[in-house]
Amino acid sequence: MNKLAPRLLAEFLGTLGLLAVVVGSGIMAERLAGGNVAVALLANALATGAALIALIAAFGGVSGAHFNPVVSAMQAWRGAITGKTAVAYGVAQVIGALAGVVLAHAMFELPLVQCSAHIRTGIGQWLSEIVATVGLLLVIHGTVRHRPDAVPYAVAGYVTAGYWFTASTCLANPAVTIARACTDTFSGIRPQDAPGFILAQIVGLVLALALMCLLQNSEENPVENPKEKHK
Amino acid sequence: MNKLAPRLLAEFLGTLGLLAVVVGSGIMAERLAGGNVAVALLANALATGAALIALIAAFGGVSGAHFNPVVSAMQAWRGAITGKTAVAYGVAQVIGALAGVVLAHAMFELPLVQCSAHIRTGIGQWLSEIVATVGLLLVIHGTVRHRPDAVPYAVAGYVTAGYWFTASTCLANPAVTIARACTDTFSGIRPQDAPGFILAQIVGLVLALALMCLLQNSEENPVENPKEKHK
Amino acid sequence: MNKLAPRLLAEFLGTLGLLAVVVGSGIMAERLAGGNVAVALLANALATGAALIALIAAFGGVSGAHFNPVVSAMQAWRGAITGKTAVAYGVAQVIGALAGVVLAHAMFELPLVQCSAHIRTGIGQWLSEIVATVGLLLVIHGTVRHRPDAVPYAVAGYVTAGYWFTASTCLANPAVTIARACTDTFSGIRPQDAPGFILAQIVGLVLALALMCLLQNSEENPVENPKEKHK
Amino acid sequence: MNKLAPRLLAEFLGTLGLLAVVVGSGIMAERLAGGNVAVALLANALATGAALIALIAAFGGVSGAHFNPVVSAMQAWRGAITGKTAVAYGVAQVIGALAGVVLAHAMFELPLVQCSAHIRTGIGQWLSEIVATVGLLLVIHGTVRHRPDAVPYAVAGYVTAGYWFTASTCLANPAVTIARACTDTFSGIRPQDAPGFILAQIVGLVLALALMCLLQNSEENPVENPKEKHK
Repeated sequence: MNKLAPRLLAEFLGTLGLLAVVVGSGIMAERLAGGNVAVALLANALATGAALIALIAAFGGVSGAHFNPVVSAMQAWRGAITGKTAVAYGVAQVIGALAGVVLAHAMFELPLVQCSAHIRTGIGQWLSEIVATVGLLLVIHGTVRHRPDAVPYAVAGYVTAGYWFTASTCLANPAVTIARACTDTFSGIRPQDAPGFILAQIVGLVLALALMCLLQNSEENPVENPKEKHK
Repeated sequence: MNKLAPRLLAEFLGTLGLLAVVVGSGIMAERLAGGNVAVALLANALATGAALIALIAAFGGVSGAHFNPVVSAMQAWRGAITGKTAVAYGVAQVIGALAGVVLAHAMFELPLVQCSAHIRTGIGQWLSEIVATVGLLLVIHGTVRHRPDAVPYAVAGYVTAGYWFTASTCLANPAVTIARACTDTFSGIRPQDAPGFILAQIVGLVLALALMCLLQNSEENPVENPKEKHK
Repeated sequence: MNKLAPRLLAEFLGTLGLLAVVVGSGIMAERLAGGNVAVALLANALATGAALIALIAAFGGVSGAHFNPVVSAMQAWRGAITGKTAVAYGVAQVIGALAGVVLAHAMFELPLVQCSAHIRTGIGQWLSEIVATVGLLLVIHGTVRHRPDAVPYAVAGYVTAGYWFTASTCLANPAVTIARACTDTFSGIRPQDAPGFILAQIVGLVLALALMCLLQNSEENPVENPKEKHK
Repeated sequence: MNKLAPRLLAEFLGTLGLLAVVVGSGIMAERLAGGNVAVALLANALATGAALIALIAAFGGVSGAHFNPVVSAMQAWRGAITGKTAVAYGVAQVIGALAGVVLAHAMFELPLVQCSAHIRTGIGQWLSEIVATVGLLLVIHGTVRHRPDAVPYAVAGYVTAGYWFTASTCLANPAVTIARACTDTFSGIRPQDAPGFILAQIVGLVLALALMCLLQNSEENPVENPKEKHK
């Protein structure tokens, strides 16, 4: 278990950093945008994507840079980590996420512990979270297998787009959902709405695993260098 | 044909994701931008480009990540895939594109099936689509040959720029054109204007293939490591 | 000279594409931005940077993707191309740049040939062009030597930043300067102001070559893997 | 000491370029943004991040592209450079940073030497600088070890995000802090507030080194290719 410690520290620090950026940039963006929500969301999305490149590049070599319990669950399912490790990762991620929110509040001199009043519920929101999670997991799975050097950019690109193409702004992460319930700022979600999001994310995980099985059949039939290519 | 299934699934999922992002981010951007169309188009363009990095990185290893019938036609012409495969890819792309539009509507709780009233016609629009398609195909062809690791970023960069430098916002894709006729939101195109766009894209394909032949003569004369470089 | 043809075609097409993007995205941005010049310049800068990634990735393997007479001059000085080739490249670049401006006008249904009335003159502008050119050439020279895979991103990043950090919006390119004198839109420059810009760019070229000589001494003393690193 | 000269020149030029971009793009952004501070900060952040990709790619192979005394201190602690070299780097960085500010003022035809009146003090600001510095150093350290090709993008991404997620806009650099005290424009900081920032950055350095020791234990236990991965 001792050898696991640096990996858990990396998951803690990375998820802390992710939430500090999501919440902190949301606070800054709302303060400066003068009521134009599109400009605020643009800043929030670009800051999150830019930070993800840095965080995945920095911590990927230590822990794999999951920062997300459904990603750790997928990696356990693939056999990349054990089930026990996935549970430990999940605990480190949730604690890190909460610490990141508190840190963002401290930097902006706001009350450290808050409770969001931002309503995010309904069919469109839940469907968005299912779609967001399926997409995130397929992007990670496909990129890790076929273009490992592109993982930081692919994940950052996906999450930046997710802020805009889903109605829920793409949380796609139970640790992030729990932590964002604890901030009454731009990126918050009401505590009573969090369980619906987390349930949708779990549904998304199951759907993504099913799709991966269907896509994986292609392994016997790699297309990158097909015979037909060399005309 | 069985081995083709995962590749068709990848084309279906990737084109679905592309359209969900194009249409979904257009809806979100228009809702939030408070009437500033430049801010809305900035969000739409950045979300599309960011998502393309993720989608090409994720699915390129399975199907080649064409997501576009004219790209599949070019790859068939090059001998990278057979003509039959190109036709199957095209069908998967159109179905995926339509599914992506429906999914975007569902996430934003809009009527699932719509018909665009957005006029996009005239000489400037058709010329723009010819230019957009020639450019896209030359970028893909050149990057695949000379900098394969850069393909996701080159295509994403081209499409992001295309939203701004063409008068038509760079559809450059018959599957995308058909699907965008089925949404009466920011990114729609009137059904009666779609054939003009698709015809222009086919003209662009032919011009691009001609230019590729002219450029290909350089293969006997590679410049990357010319003798004269080693002064 | 026959073998040179595809390379000249690549320089022609790449510079054409660059100018179509610079001028076209400027027109679109000004039309949509509702008078907020910062938003227009943001769109113009992002479109140009995004397109440069695509154009350099696509044409670098054929011609080296100079798209700029001062870059070709630097490459001739380095011995990467002959002086004759540099002159031919320069001609192809100027013709391509002019064709790109005409194409942008055609896509937006504007008069094809125009004359800019946009005043860009004075000490600050000329100093900006000197700085812009020195920086561009140092970035290309250093990146080609030490991180060749990063060339498209480094050049795109530099030019995107250049729109903002110089008072002249960083033309840094005589072919671009001549072509932008021929558009009376967002990105134009008065014909009578073009010579001052081109002179400043040539001064920048000379300064950059001098700095390269000073930096090149480091070759006997590479720092990337210094002995002292292995503590 | 002679062999050190090109490396010091690279640190001087790179830090000069960084400050010219930070200050110059801040001036341009404030002039054009029409009072919308969020749009101005977006331009400032994107220009800085884009330029960092170019500067690190261009000068990394010569000097390591530190551009920051706390980065040089960390590299000396790691044994990548000697303590003497770190001091010389620091001097070159401070002189380069000051020269960059003067150059930005000259390009925009402002008084060359200024004194900022921009108040940046208080607990939230100092905490922000500690967080910003810890994050920057962890990102550099982790990326250099595990994904060296990603260094320019990871650092650029981190700094772009830092403009938004910290209350202090992430200076995280004593040379930058000193230089920004010398401009009374968008990115300035009052001279009397600079010591607090620099002290916070030194605290961040110490905390970062402690965290690196804890993370480094993972070296005997690499996760990238764990045995458990091969299910």
